[in-house]
Amino acid sequence: MKTLKIFCDLRLTGRALSLFEQGVAPHQVVYPATPAGSVLAQAAFDPGLAEADVAFGQPAVASVLAARQLRWLQVASAGYTRFDTPEFRAAAAAAGLAVTNSSSVYAGPCAEHVLAFLLAQARVLPAALRSQCANGTAEWDALRHGCTLMGGQSVLLFGYGAIALRLVALLQPFGLPVRAYRRRARGDEAVPIVTAEGLPAALGAADTVVNLLPDNAESRNFFTAERFSQMKPGAVFHNIGRGTTVDQTALVAALQSGHLAAAWLDVTDPEPLPPGHPLLSAPNCHLTPHIAGGHRHEAESLVRHFLENFQRFVAGQSLSDRVM
Amino acid sequence: MKTLKIFCDLRLTGRALSLFEQGVAPHQVVYPATPAGSVLAQAAFDPGLAEADVAFGQPAVASVLAARQLRWLQVASAGYTRFDTPEFRAAAAAAGLAVTNSSSVYAGPCAEHVLAFLLAQARVLPAALRSQCANGTAEWDALRHGCTLMGGQSVLLFGYGAIALRLVALLQPFGLPVRAYRRRARGDEAVPIVTAEGLPAALGAADTVVNLLPDNAESRNFFTAERFSQMKPGAVFHNIGRGTTVDQTALVAALQSGHLAAAWLDVTDPEPLPPGHPLLSAPNCHLTPHIAGGHRHEAESLVRHFLENFQRFVAGQSLSDRVM
Repeated sequence: MKTLKIFCDLRLTGRALSLFEQGVAPHQVVYPATPAGSVLAQAAFDPGLAEADVAFGQPAVASVLAARQLRWLQVASAGYTRFDTPEFRAAAAAAGLAVTNSSSVYAGPCAEHVLAFLLAQARVLPAALRSQCANGTAEWDALRHGCTLMGGQSVLLFGYGAIALRLVALLQPFGLPVRAYRRRARGDEAVPIVTAEGLPAALGAADTVVNLLPDNAESRNFFTAERFSQMKPGAVFHNIGRGTTVDQTALVAALQSGHLAAAWLDVTDPEPLPPGHPLLSAPNCHLTPHIAGGHRHEAESLVRHFLENFQRFVAGQSLSDRVM
Repeated sequence: MKTLKIFCDLRLTGRALSLFEQGVAPHQVVYPATPAGSVLAQAAFDPGLAEADVAFGQPAVASVLAARQLRWLQVASAGYTRFDTPEFRAAAAAAGLAVTNSSSVYAGPCAEHVLAFLLAQARVLPAALRSQCANGTAEWDALRHGCTLMGGQSVLLFGYGAIALRLVALLQPFGLPVRAYRRRARGDEAVPIVTAEGLPAALGAADTVVNLLPDNAESRNFFTAERFSQMKPGAVFHNIGRGTTVDQTALVAALQSGHLAAAWLDVTDPEPLPPGHPLLSAPNCHLTPHIAGGHRHEAESLVRHFLENFQRFVAGQSLSDRVM
């Protein structure tokens, strides 16, 4: 067996690092001079990639395009926007480069983050956690009867990848109607699919809109003022996809007018929002700082997922989470 | 068919009121001079109950004991502490009085409130919702990796009634190990049951403790300093049962020492806590003001549940949620 060179630009430490190094042995690991700033950040151009067979992490597009030996790139995030261009896809196809992402790793924590948002909204946690009102008072009545049973709520998902699939599973016991928007229905989805022509009606019927869209040319600015206006009055908007998919000025207006009851956003554009940005003070706008994919064992999970694919790669089998 | 007199001391209005009155017609409704302050509060003694066949709401114990015609009382809450005494049980048995509660009505919202607490803790929502830290900073790393995947967490429930059953169903897709403490296992439970002798070990093994115990002579002060000390370091304690089941001084100490990572309490003793109570400033102590059972259509749900039982009562069938 040929010894493969595996380029990894993640800042692995401790258990994740030893798991990685033991898992790829006896193949050779190539580290860059400067690893990526985080699992989400693109690393600088690195000549170390030029001679690698496999890359794992967040390499720069230019480094990947210059890497003539490279047969497989596993991106250490669910998002892979900078690679998701016609030019890169064409270059990858011509070079015989397989590209996988880490969406399996992020499906669980992201779906749990969405459900945390849905339930925090349903149980009015932001207001309730600030209150110590007495039983029977008007404030107590408003909180207690401001809660919503999940069972009656209809949910419309945007995006139908690994996160959506996991979320659909987590929502199953609540017995609520879930539909998903997808550009093209495949027919094997676990929930009814809404396509473009059905979208205005579907937006008007949903109590809860969950945006899981990645950032790409088609999704950018997807949630326009018109789409917000098509949503049901009192609907709640969640974004765990990418901030660039939303016209944030239109979202602020929809919250200020009360057309939307609330927004729960793990992603914005930019991140973080600059001080004084109107989303920071928009009514019922709840923000977390792009942490939906995280959890205590995130790095180990990324490595395990890479190693599973690495075994397949070595054995010549098809890779999971392949995106091109 | 004899015309029954149905005493109802709930403050029903609008749709819930018309549902109730249409549902019991042609039987006669008897309202008290002063209805109960809330679905949780005991009403004052009311002579109107004296001639009723059926009572629905929160009548005083003395009114019930004085009601010689009364054949059935449906309490409009899951808790029925004031009736749960040997004296009242004996009097009810002697008088042929059936007592039901409304636990079916509260199972859904209470289980959803618990899951909202579990997920808010898992996704570090209290800290994350206050943060707009930048990707890659130390604060961001702490938040992102402070999250916990639900899948790995073991849960120990205290109480195994309607709320626990619903919660077990909601937790099912997460694939986490759930056990429940019950004084006596019946053998038909959906999860492994822990009894008194196994309790110290079970407390030491659980990442998450969920207290759903009602208030009664056996549950009062159940969570003592000793039981908190038996919990796993870093465990999280949730209380959606009753505040009287917890030694609150011991809970404060367990939070202050860091032995418990957090507490999420919908109930306390008293409610609300007086200003300056140490639980209000204990580290990682998150409080909601006894709203777990509430939702927008609570009154209608209570009425529907009563009417279902009323049909059974009239038909001589066995009643649901019967507690004595």
